[in-house]
Amino acid sequence: MKARRLLSFIPLPNWLRAYSPEQLPDDLAAGFITAALLIPQGIAYAILAGLPAEVGLYASIVPPVVYALLGSSRTLSVGPVSVAALLVADALATGGTVRGGADYLVDAMLLAALSGVMLLAMAALRLGFLVNFISHPVLSGFTSGAAVLIILSQLDNLTGMGMPSTGSGFDMVGGALRQFSGLHFPTLLVGGSAFVALLLCKAPLVHGLRRLGMTVRRAALISRTGPLLVLVVLTMTVVLFDLHDHGVAIVERIPAGLPTFTLAFLNADRMLPLLAPAFLIALIGYVESVSVAKVLGYRRREKIDSDRELAALGGANLAAAFAGGMPVAGGFSRSMVNYAAGARTQLATIVAALLVALAALFFTSAFFYLPTAALAAIIILAVAPLFDWRGAMRTFRYDRADAAALLITFVGVVAIDIEVGLSLGVAIAIVVFLWRSSRPHLAVVGRLAGTEHYRNVERYQVTTWPELLLLRVDRSLFFANVNYVEDAVAHAAAAQPELKHLVIICSAVNAIDHSAVEALGQLSSNLRAAGITLHLAEVKGPVMDRLKRSKLIEQLAPGQVFLSTQAAVERLAGDSEQGKVNGEW
Amino acid sequence: MKARRLLSFIPLPNWLRAYSPEQLPDDLAAGFITAALLIPQGIAYAILAGLPAEVGLYASIVPPVVYALLGSSRTLSVGPVSVAALLVADALATGGTVRGGADYLVDAMLLAALSGVMLLAMAALRLGFLVNFISHPVLSGFTSGAAVLIILSQLDNLTGMGMPSTGSGFDMVGGALRQFSGLHFPTLLVGGSAFVALLLCKAPLVHGLRRLGMTVRRAALISRTGPLLVLVVLTMTVVLFDLHDHGVAIVERIPAGLPTFTLAFLNADRMLPLLAPAFLIALIGYVESVSVAKVLGYRRREKIDSDRELAALGGANLAAAFAGGMPVAGGFSRSMVNYAAGARTQLATIVAALLVALAALFFTSAFFYLPTAALAAIIILAVAPLFDWRGAMRTFRYDRADAAALLITFVGVVAIDIEVGLSLGVAIAIVVFLWRSSRPHLAVVGRLAGTEHYRNVERYQVTTWPELLLLRVDRSLFFANVNYVEDAVAHAAAAQPELKHLVIICSAVNAIDHSAVEALGQLSSNLRAAGITLHLAEVKGPVMDRLKRSKLIEQLAPGQVFLSTQAAVERLAGDSEQGKVNGEW
Repeated sequence: MKARRLLSFIPLPNWLRAYSPEQLPDDLAAGFITAALLIPQGIAYAILAGLPAEVGLYASIVPPVVYALLGSSRTLSVGPVSVAALLVADALATGGTVRGGADYLVDAMLLAALSGVMLLAMAALRLGFLVNFISHPVLSGFTSGAAVLIILSQLDNLTGMGMPSTGSGFDMVGGALRQFSGLHFPTLLVGGSAFVALLLCKAPLVHGLRRLGMTVRRAALISRTGPLLVLVVLTMTVVLFDLHDHGVAIVERIPAGLPTFTLAFLNADRMLPLLAPAFLIALIGYVESVSVAKVLGYRRREKIDSDRELAALGGANLAAAFAGGMPVAGGFSRSMVNYAAGARTQLATIVAALLVALAALFFTSAFFYLPTAALAAIIILAVAPLFDWRGAMRTFRYDRADAAALLITFVGVVAIDIEVGLSLGVAIAIVVFLWRSSRPHLAVVGRLAGTEHYRNVERYQVTTWPELLLLRVDRSLFFANVNYVEDAVAHAAAAQPELKHLVIICSAVNAIDHSAVEALGQLSSNLRAAGITLHLAEVKGPVMDRLKRSKLIEQLAPGQVFLSTQAAVERLAGDSEQGKVNGEW
Repeated sequence: MKARRLLSFIPLPNWLRAYSPEQLPDDLAAGFITAALLIPQGIAYAILAGLPAEVGLYASIVPPVVYALLGSSRTLSVGPVSVAALLVADALATGGTVRGGADYLVDAMLLAALSGVMLLAMAALRLGFLVNFISHPVLSGFTSGAAVLIILSQLDNLTGMGMPSTGSGFDMVGGALRQFSGLHFPTLLVGGSAFVALLLCKAPLVHGLRRLGMTVRRAALISRTGPLLVLVVLTMTVVLFDLHDHGVAIVERIPAGLPTFTLAFLNADRMLPLLAPAFLIALIGYVESVSVAKVLGYRRREKIDSDRELAALGGANLAAAFAGGMPVAGGFSRSMVNYAAGARTQLATIVAALLVALAALFFTSAFFYLPTAALAAIIILAVAPLFDWRGAMRTFRYDRADAAALLITFVGVVAIDIEVGLSLGVAIAIVVFLWRSSRPHLAVVGRLAGTEHYRNVERYQVTTWPELLLLRVDRSLFFANVNYVEDAVAHAAAAQPELKHLVIICSAVNAIDHSAVEALGQLSSNLRAAGITLHLAEVKGPVMDRLKRSKLIEQLAPGQVFLSTQAAVERLAGDSEQGKVNGEW
């Protein structure tokens, strides 16, 4: 018992502390399958980011292990991801760092370090709630836009036409149109075959294997190793037909070895322009990781701790910076593969990382003739599902303002700039929310005959009284909506010349800020000048506790705070049966 | 009847269309009394703005008449106001326009024109709701800060010490300390006597007159003409003792005449730097005017139309620009004097404007020996009540976050810059609101024994069930709080191992945005993976109408939407009497 308690102070991950040997076979198997996906993905995303291929491998070794030791998810797989790679390419292109130049790798490491420090700071300062302000529609528009940009950036590798692979969507489409005559048919042939073969590896392959009598699970596993097979076949094709001599781009030499610890990227001068993109990488990486972790976490009733996720992802990114890599995050497809392959704990991630390390040490020569067109096909197929057309349609049907935020984010990301697009979307979502909060739903209510229920006079046949007005406010009262409520009260009061008592029903008012308290006090004295007494009814407990700290209760007098609307009517409507029933509708 | 209908299309103000001769004597009397206040105030605020004295008179002639014809308030008095004068002085000092130089007046007119156009545009585009985002505490901090700056800016005139009268509070206090030896005793004597005499004109004079048997109303009226008397006496003192030869600053020559229509200020080059201060003048002027108009409006059950107020104030400011003046707004003290003096309609304002015009035409020589120290005393006493110490204390007791917004606005305005201070305050108020909205109040509820009422398990002795969890959300669900709710659900689910049904009670949920719909769908499928079914209960009509447009209802299945919590318990708790009653507390 004491030993256990002591253990809880040593920062060992839960899964390791409670590891049972029976989990080992599953974790080993899942590690192998995940590694088979990690190696080509790592190389592909490094190329997408404009970095040397080995950087993608390095980023798949140390950072996942750091996450495994710090994170709260048992199956999240951390490493290079497509959107972060795009953000690196975009940040460095915008900042003017020359692709392939000496500073390019250093700046990518600096981006990883900065976003790592930011994530750690957010964990320490409990600022994780910041990501809540990226609404679902904005995130959907952003991801769809990023998917389009990534696909456009891979068209060059896929076709060899020599178009630009960075810049806005316009730049790239424009470049493609100008360079169309530059299509390189051998490259296009390799890219196209990779594309078709990878497509066939998905549903058709599973379908075919099942027809041959295989179980779903085994068929799915084989389909997951399909991409590796496609790459092997295409690499052999390149070698057999000397395609690289015919201009088909290949990965070429990846230096064998392991990442070495370095501080080379620490350069204060270069930091300033990279702060904003690093923040974006931190934010988006965290949102992606934590949502994947949550999806996986529920399946095993395992609690995902947001603050620990921030810290773990921050640590992983710092590790990525120090051990010669690029920014990392938890990837959706990779984590799903890990989970589906049967991973029980983060040991599977560690096994996969060790296998990647072995590949980096001994097998990099195997990737020499790997055609980049095939990697482009892998990337395009990996990000295509991120383009969330159905989600956009659902949003459009549900709420036009949310749909507008989605569309503006998407267009902003594709046509203007990634950061501008996301900032625009976030700002619009906040303004829409504030605007809506500033126009709350209000209802004049009356009594349903023979009951103590009070309903909207516009929806029900209810009793009302000439000297009494019951107004229900369906929103918390705060600075941005209190003028609207005041105007509505003035309007309602002016429309009812015999009015003596006005009751605001607060059953849906969850909070009243100080602007609203002052405004209610002012409203009460203004109404009194017109011979009308203001009352409140159905004020919630926590709201009432707080109101008692203000002078509002005194200012209302002789107005009162009634526990229920019924109590207000019994007290204020005189003979409450004298009310008038409005016409049915 | 037809004539009346036709009349309603002619833009005649309501008060004029329905004018009855019996209102005339009251309006005439009120006009005289208001003019007695307007003339010294106009001159004083022009000097505060750094403008020639006659500009203050001109701004009290045409703009009030324009407002009288367009506005919706019957008693609001529009003209030069202290805060707008400060904003003009600050904007022009920051912009580098030389005080007293040829461009200074032109730029002031441009500010009036720009804020006029902005107000008209806000009226046309229905953007009046923008002012809702200036919360009460922020406005209070801003006004208090402005009062401090105004008082500091008048210390030079009051004491003749030669300190700066613009810049931040630090600049002015620093200047005062450096120039302390420059105190000019004759000026200080005049300023000090004005200060004391004006103070005596308030409560002590009313008190004394009442002792002499006068009615409250008459005593109050006489006390209001007191300042004019003080100025007359001090002017005569200056003349008698040749104080101006001893260095006491006087108003000197005010050219006799009326404002002439001019377009001299139209200069595109100078516009750009004045846009932001003009927006501030428009916003603050409108907030001040409309709140005074509302206070007065309620007293006569007269409806203040925000959009018409925007248009009327915009028109008045355009008039101020064209007729050689400075920005105007509805002033609190002036309007209260007008109202208390018995004004029935805007005719009183027009009478006052005519009297100011007469003064500008024929009596400007009377102001030649008026000591500016006396005007400084008038300004200081007029703005001192704007320093809202009690309001700040009330805010502090009620809500620390609101108090922080107030304090930061105040400090920002005084120590940094007026615009920066206000922007900081507005931003903080919005962030605090968003942050609070992102952490809604949640309650696990149970059934009060023997009833169908459901209450917080932490506050009441209630029945709960091991297989059923009832969670009440006390806020609308939207992008910024949905993660918090999701985490709380995951936490609650993990704490109750036998859980099979989780019901979210939506009685206080007034809206669900698309982020929340998507998150609830995801939550439902995540919970199902853990063997828990998600249900909703007490969804409001408008919210349900909208949910039907989404796929959430399908995604919940077999989870249901229950009309009442009781119905959910009857269906889901099995033998609902088997529940466990929690300990009393």
